[in-house]
Amino acid sequence: MKIVLATRNAGKIAELRRILAGFDIVGLEEFPSIGEVAETGVTFEENALLKAHAVAQGSGLPAVADDSGLCVDVLNGMPGVFSARWAGRHGDDSANLALLLAQISDVPADKLTAHFACAAALALPSGDYRVVEGVLPGHLVTTPRGSGGFGYDPILVPDGEQRTTAEMAPEEKDAISHRGRAFRALAPIVRELVSS
Amino acid sequence: MKIVLATRNAGKIAELRRILAGFDIVGLEEFPSIGEVAETGVTFEENALLKAHAVAQGSGLPAVADDSGLCVDVLNGMPGVFSARWAGRHGDDSANLALLLAQISDVPADKLTAHFACAAALALPSGDYRVVEGVLPGHLVTTPRGSGGFGYDPILVPDGEQRTTAEMAPEEKDAISHRGRAFRALAPIVRELVSS
Repeated sequence: MKIVLATRNAGKIAELRRILAGFDIVGLEEFPSIGEVAETGVTFEENALLKAHAVAQGSGLPAVADDSGLCVDVLNGMPGVFSARWAGRHGDDSANLALLLAQISDVPADKLTAHFACAAALALPSGDYRVVEGVLPGHLVTTPRGSGGFGYDPILVPDGEQRTTAEMAPEEKDAISHRGRAFRALAPIVRELVSS
Repeated sequence: MKIVLATRNAGKIAELRRILAGFDIVGLEEFPSIGEVAETGVTFEENALLKAHAVAQGSGLPAVADDSGLCVDVLNGMPGVFSARWAGRHGDDSANLALLLAQISDVPADKLTAHFACAAALALPSGDYRVVEGVLPGHLVTTPRGSGGFGYDPILVPDGEQRTTAEMAPEEKDAISHRGRAFRALAPIVRELVSS
């Protein structure tokens, strides 16, 4: 049985294919008629479900979607669900990162705690659904480091680590990441619901 | 007795002079040796006190300072203490407003609740201090209206109003504003502490 990944973000697709290995996963590119889903939710869960439901309905197949972002404590958990459009335009990673760095430039280093969060959702064409969450706590550095990952990876150092998530090998990051944790928690649910 | 207003923001100085009429108020321009105070606090109260204490120590006079901003519910209360540097550079009102409008462009109108908040602080050269808060609840419009005020005034419509705070006469805005409320609450405290 095919499962559709409800994202056009190449970085996410690569990550999710590694984590959900064993499933026959196809991307949204096979369903050009499914338009962009507006992320009007105010929580990661809401947005992940909005996307998963829209794609399951549009494709007639089980659909998996995530919504994830960076939650900075001194910004009351923002950028949060606005992470991908923090600078105002959706998906401009470098503008988003530059804005966040400018915003926190006066914040003392010991107050720069933050975490990545991810909600991973499965929706079936029947309307049934599940959603789980994963987090990766750490702190921010104000000089980006590393070329791996995407988004805010170059500035988050996970608790117990010296490196940013952009300085880790992909498999190493998957093992601890918010998205890895959420999708590993979702995997058995996918197996159960999709095969039943 | 002179009181120093710890701000170089012309809009704020004009507002505070109207609200604290009757006091012999001088601006920071009379104390060129007092440098910029870094707003490293994570609450309006912390930042107002940081500024008031620094100016009271630097001038040897009672000092009044405020920190205020716009708290947007879908942004978890942000821009908050980052209101004046939301787009990354301190005091660029038009960039801050443009960024916020871009960030909320996908948010349904009924979720655009927000409030202005202000902490007003008095600090004496002795180190004694007081701080009070005022708020102005309302909702945001996504097309700026009005030429009065400053900052985010063109997009906040107070509860019970049809106009933005930038469409009100200055005295009308003072009567209901977060800053008016905070400074009117502070005024009797200033009278008592400064004259004693």
